[in-house]
Amino acid sequence: MQRKTQFRDVFYVSDGTAITSETLGHAVLGQFPLETKQMTLPFVETIERAEHVKNLIKQAHEASDSQPIVFYSVVIPEVKAVLEQSSALLYDVLNVLVEPLRQDLNLEPAPKLQRSHSINKDAASYMDRIAAIEYTLAHDDGISLNNLDQADIILLGVSRCGKTPTSLYLAMQFGIRAVNYPFIAEDMKRLKLPQAIEPYRYKTFGLTIDPERLHTIRHERMADSEYASQLQCETELGKVESMFRREAIPYLNTSSLSVEEISTRLLELSGLKRRMC
Amino acid sequence: MQRKTQFRDVFYVSDGTAITSETLGHAVLGQFPLETKQMTLPFVETIERAEHVKNLIKQAHEASDSQPIVFYSVVIPEVKAVLEQSSALLYDVLNVLVEPLRQDLNLEPAPKLQRSHSINKDAASYMDRIAAIEYTLAHDDGISLNNLDQADIILLGVSRCGKTPTSLYLAMQFGIRAVNYPFIAEDMKRLKLPQAIEPYRYKTFGLTIDPERLHTIRHERMADSEYASQLQCETELGKVESMFRREAIPYLNTSSLSVEEISTRLLELSGLKRRMC
Repeated sequence: MQRKTQFRDVFYVSDGTAITSETLGHAVLGQFPLETKQMTLPFVETIERAEHVKNLIKQAHEASDSQPIVFYSVVIPEVKAVLEQSSALLYDVLNVLVEPLRQDLNLEPAPKLQRSHSINKDAASYMDRIAAIEYTLAHDDGISLNNLDQADIILLGVSRCGKTPTSLYLAMQFGIRAVNYPFIAEDMKRLKLPQAIEPYRYKTFGLTIDPERLHTIRHERMADSEYASQLQCETELGKVESMFRREAIPYLNTSSLSVEEISTRLLELSGLKRRMC
Repeated sequence: MQRKTQFRDVFYVSDGTAITSETLGHAVLGQFPLETKQMTLPFVETIERAEHVKNLIKQAHEASDSQPIVFYSVVIPEVKAVLEQSSALLYDVLNVLVEPLRQDLNLEPAPKLQRSHSINKDAASYMDRIAAIEYTLAHDDGISLNNLDQADIILLGVSRCGKTPTSLYLAMQFGIRAVNYPFIAEDMKRLKLPQAIEPYRYKTFGLTIDPERLHTIRHERMADSEYASQLQCETELGKVESMFRREAIPYLNTSSLSVEEISTRLLELSGLKRRMC
């Protein structure tokens, strides 16, 4: 069965970072069999910039002979007014929910300029997040096993199973202090929890991965090395997983999961709260 | 003037990571003078989990005596059906835009299970992002000035002006390979661009910050040190900013900007494309 595929130019426009418009727009477009060319235009804060954006939209319309799709989130009224004259399919990603909430709550919106200027950088949550990134960097890849009392979570696993990107995502997105520790080939003879981690085993989680996938990833990095060999990958994973089971450390196979998914699942497993930023 | 402030429990529910629901829900709630207690429930993929969520919502309703607010994004029909029986104000964050698009485009949605299982981890963009994180980590804080030909951007500035979190955000969110290099006290006597960076000056951007703010941040880290003194901060910033001007390196004051904002502005300034992940 063949589906008709349309082409559309897509614009994400905002007087802030445009991250909200992008996130929602991506998710919505993902529901349609559409071919798109996408462009993000953040910080549209003046009438001049808005006129420029309106022109870009007009040009795209003329070039493709179909109305572009615009996901926007603009608080400044004059900027919004210019943008809304565009010859496009216009979707106000905030207002589409603000309106129903206004009615359901019987409450008037008190719009804030959404630019994160309005973020109070001294706010505890923002400083926490920066501190979490620092802590996580200092404890990446077994660099340091000091101050583990301050860790929110300790990730364990073989080299290249996803510990580092996951740790950084947890810190960046959720303000979580993540330690990660790799088991290397030399650890394999008598695999056990490092002594420094032992008192904090209640904060440990294992990451694992399919041997084929690990082989592919390691091969890209170090072609034809013993480190990357299928046999080595299988051996390391077998030993580490059996250690996780022996020590009753909960673990997660990352093979088919994105960094966002691994992180979200770890939050669920650990019961850690997201620290909203 | 006093505004009436309501209290509401808020739930973000999804059969995926719930990141879309959270992002949009935060932005929408930010428009209202509301006090909230928020809870995120990702990976609600079974009828049982959905019944559990429905119960949590019911309990919150009874405890606070007002209808909770639920932002949700659920693709699995049976899960959605259970959730939609909840005694809450229900907002389907995807459907609220999918419906108008369907009509405007005259195109039937072809819903994908939104769980990022559907992310093809071998997809070039995903691997690029992981590679960008690695590259950025290896080039954090002046650790290495090798392979600068592969850098997308090189950030310069004094210690503690925001280079590291910004670099990591650029890598994580946009797949950008960011190098960052700190000018330290010893550099100040004869401040110039490091020789290794010279050939890549077209990729350099400066970050700067207000002296008071830098003083506060450094003081938190190393109280009463010379490093944190107001005078030292002023001197370093003066010298570095005048170097940026002398060398015609564009620069940005990060004092009132969030990491997301700094990153988005740098993309604008540099003309780098976001690599969608």
